[in-house]
Amino acid sequence: MHNYEVKRLLVNYKTLEEFKNFREYGSAELSMKGDLEANIIENDSESPFYGVYFGKKLVARMSLYRIDGKYDRYFNPPQDYLELWKLEVLEAYRKQGYGEALVNFAKSFQLPIKTNGRQGSGPFWEHMGFEAATYDATRDRGESPYVWYPEGVKEQVAGKEPVNIESEDNLS
Amino acid sequence: MHNYEVKRLLVNYKTLEEFKNFREYGSAELSMKGDLEANIIENDSESPFYGVYFGKKLVARMSLYRIDGKYDRYFNPPQDYLELWKLEVLEAYRKQGYGEALVNFAKSFQLPIKTNGRQGSGPFWEHMGFEAATYDATRDRGESPYVWYPEGVKEQVAGKEPVNIESEDNLS
Repeated sequence: MHNYEVKRLLVNYKTLEEFKNFREYGSAELSMKGDLEANIIENDSESPFYGVYFGKKLVARMSLYRIDGKYDRYFNPPQDYLELWKLEVLEAYRKQGYGEALVNFAKSFQLPIKTNGRQGSGPFWEHMGFEAATYDATRDRGESPYVWYPEGVKEQVAGKEPVNIESEDNLS
Repeated sequence: MHNYEVKRLLVNYKTLEEFKNFREYGSAELSMKGDLEANIIENDSESPFYGVYFGKKLVARMSLYRIDGKYDRYFNPPQDYLELWKLEVLEAYRKQGYGEALVNFAKSFQLPIKTNGRQGSGPFWEHMGFEAATYDATRDRGESPYVWYPEGVKEQVAGKEPVNIESEDNLS
């Protein structure tokens, strides 16, 4: 177990330049850059990204969004959860626990987590205690959702009303 | 311009075996396989996938979902649109117009289209007449959405009420 420090990343030109080293660089990053250049956001604003540095170099990152419980279609009972995106470790730094450190950090909020598992990432997510959600074409539209349930949280069965856990207990 | 025939793919063991040749093989495909094995769906059921064959070999595919207009957060006026996923051409068959044939087929429905542009795919989508949607963190959560507008359709500005086009016309 490594003791990597996970930091919330601030939006500034240095961070945005470092983001270019990651394969998954897209509209989210370009939008932050545009907002910074146009003074729509201030330098050093908080971003939805978290990362780990090796010295001064950003070597791993992920982004986390808290989704309001009223949109929850994954968890039972329905509740606020975290959507984890763009988990990525620079190639030379893989297999050294950086990805695990980021995921453990996400779990420390004690909210359910949902991510879209990339090709071949199943074993990693299972190692981290995630499960493949039962696929629902309408909800998942081609994604491969993996979910992490904190204590007391179950899968929301797609297309059915959320089960009321209290009344289930009353049956016993 | 090639004259490739785009076919709607039927769910059967041959198709599911061919899907394994594509990099983006995930929960959607595994779920269809499970449903077929458990007789939850019949052999040769319609799938959301479309593909192009070279001889008897499936060399390109995409999946299309029609999204109900009440969930539309991309187009103005809000309306039913197509979500395009998993567009992929097998490596040995790239740069021969297979991807273009599939996207042109999707456009032939004359509905707006939304896709999530993969790393480096921007020039392809722009060549196909798509535009990068203005990034909205809450809606897009790390995606890089590209959209195609048929005649008369505009971008839906995020976080604002859809503009009523008729009353706009009345201003002139």
